[in-house]
Amino acid sequence: MKLLRYGSPGAERPGILLDDEWYDTSALGEDYTNDFLGNGGLDRLAAFIEKDRRVLKKVPSTERLGVPLANPGKIVCVGLNYKDHIRETGFIPEAEPILFLKAMSALNGPYDGVTIPKDSLETDWETELGVVIGKEGTNLETAQAMDYIAGYILHNDISERAYMKKRGGTWDKGKGCNTFAPLGPYFVTKDEIPDPGNLRIWLKLNGEIMQDGNTSDLIHPIPELTAYVSEFFGLFPGDIISTGSPAGSGTGRMPQRFLSPGDVIEYGIDHLGTARQLMRAYQRK
Amino acid sequence: MKLLRYGSPGAERPGILLDDEWYDTSALGEDYTNDFLGNGGLDRLAAFIEKDRRVLKKVPSTERLGVPLANPGKIVCVGLNYKDHIRETGFIPEAEPILFLKAMSALNGPYDGVTIPKDSLETDWETELGVVIGKEGTNLETAQAMDYIAGYILHNDISERAYMKKRGGTWDKGKGCNTFAPLGPYFVTKDEIPDPGNLRIWLKLNGEIMQDGNTSDLIHPIPELTAYVSEFFGLFPGDIISTGSPAGSGTGRMPQRFLSPGDVIEYGIDHLGTARQLMRAYQRK
Repeated sequence: MKLLRYGSPGAERPGILLDDEWYDTSALGEDYTNDFLGNGGLDRLAAFIEKDRRVLKKVPSTERLGVPLANPGKIVCVGLNYKDHIRETGFIPEAEPILFLKAMSALNGPYDGVTIPKDSLETDWETELGVVIGKEGTNLETAQAMDYIAGYILHNDISERAYMKKRGGTWDKGKGCNTFAPLGPYFVTKDEIPDPGNLRIWLKLNGEIMQDGNTSDLIHPIPELTAYVSEFFGLFPGDIISTGSPAGSGTGRMPQRFLSPGDVIEYGIDHLGTARQLMRAYQRK
Repeated sequence: MKLLRYGSPGAERPGILLDDEWYDTSALGEDYTNDFLGNGGLDRLAAFIEKDRRVLKKVPSTERLGVPLANPGKIVCVGLNYKDHIRETGFIPEAEPILFLKAMSALNGPYDGVTIPKDSLETDWETELGVVIGKEGTNLETAQAMDYIAGYILHNDISERAYMKKRGGTWDKGKGCNTFAPLGPYFVTKDEIPDPGNLRIWLKLNGEIMQDGNTSDLIHPIPELTAYVSEFFGLFPGDIISTGSPAGSGTGRMPQRFLSPGDVIEYGIDHLGTARQLMRAYQRK
C-alpha cells in the first residue's frame, strides 16, 4: 500500500494511493500514527480497503500532501553511506557508520517550500531512502532486522554545509533547520518493494540531473544498518532510518553549487514516488 | 508553579506541587502538552488552581512520577558549557557552542531506572539545567530570548562516552540510548526562579558527591544560548535546551569512574527538585 496524508498543515487526513488516484481513508477512524503502525494498523487498513474500496471518496490531486506519517518519533540518519558520495566529499571513511539525528521540527510536506536559513550560503540537497520501523527493538541481529521494518519513504536530508562543518560541534546544527526534512509523498509498505537494495535514486536541480544513483551502491545495506542503529537507539514504530545519499550533492560538485531562493529541486526513488520543493528566502514571522 | 505528571508509563495524569504535596489537576481537562504551553495553558492552570485549590484531590507521593511534559518536541543539548567541565575533559573549547540532539525515545521519568546499554563500559552522568520553550521562534536576539522561555526542568544527560567518541561520527550515538534522558521531577515555571544564572547544581553517586557546581559558571548563559540555538533550530513550545553539565562527570575524574548495575545516582538543582536513578543491566525484552 501507498499511504498518504493530505490537507492543510496540522489538519491532514489519511488517504491512500490506488491506481494513481488519491482516496480518503478517514472512515477507518485512524490516522497513521506510531501506535497505528505498532498495533496492526496496516492490517486493519488493508482489510478496510479490500472491503470498502468501491465507496472510498476520491481526493482531488490539487490537495496539499503532508508528511505521510502522523507523528514519527525520530529520524536517525547515516552519513556517507554511498561509495560515490564518499569519494566526492573527500571524507575519509569511518570504520563504522556515522549516525546523527534530524530535529523533528524540521519535518515538511513533500511539495512544501524549503526555507533557506537566514544568512545561509551552503544549503544543499540529499535524496535518501528512509526505512520506516514497524516494531520496537534494540540490539537486533542483521538477520532479524527486516522483521522490524514496516516500509519505506522518500526523504530529502537537506543540509547546511557551513553549519555542519564550520560552526563547531556535531553535524546536527546543519541538519535540523525548519523545513529541512521533507518526507513523502507516500509511506510505501515493504510488500510493494521486492528489493530495497536495488532502486534508482535521483535528483534534479532546475531540471538538470544532479544525483543519479542506486541503492545497490550502499556501503551498509538496509538490514545491517537497521541492526547497527538499534545498538545505540531503541527503535520504535514510526521511527525512520535515513540511509544516506548518493553522489551529486552540491558540496561534492566542482565547482560547488548551493541552493538559492527560486531554485527548484525534484527527486525520486523507484516505487516511492517523487517530490519537489521550491527554495524560498528566510522571512521573520 | 511546579507541574508534574504521575502514574504508570504512558498513562500519566497531570498534577501540581503545592506546599510539598502533590495534587491532581486532571479536572482542568488538559495534559501538559506542547499545545498547552503554546496556547495559554499555564495561565488557565494558574486560574484553575486559584479557584479550585481547596477541592483538588491529593495524590499519594508513593505514585510514580513520569516526565513532567506530555510530548516535548526535541532536546537540544549544549556540550562543554561549564568552564570547570572543559578543563576536566581536556577538550579544546570550540569558538561556538557545541550542539547536539537527544533522541526523544530516551525520555525517562525522574525516578525510573536507567538501563546501561548492552556491552557498555562507559555510561556516565551529567546533571543539567533544561530550559523549556514556551513560544515559537527562530533567529532570536539575546535580549528577547527570555520571552520565549516558559520555565526550567532538571535533566540528566546520560552519556555513553565510548559510543560518543570511539565509534565514529557524532556524539548522538552515545546520548540517545533508551532511558538516557530522565526529566523532572517538575517543570518549574520561570516566575519561580529569580535568577536561573545562579543555581547550585549537584550530583551524588552512591551517596558521594561527584558534581557540585553553579549555573553562574556557564560559559554561554541562558539568554545567549537560547538565541544561539534558535539560529539553527526552530524553537517550539515544549522544546528543551539542556545547558550543559559542570565538572565531576565520570569521564573527567582521575581515575575515570563509570556506572555499573546497582549504582545509584541522586542529583538536583536549586528550586528544580531532585531525582534519583538506579542503574540496571540491559535485558532483552
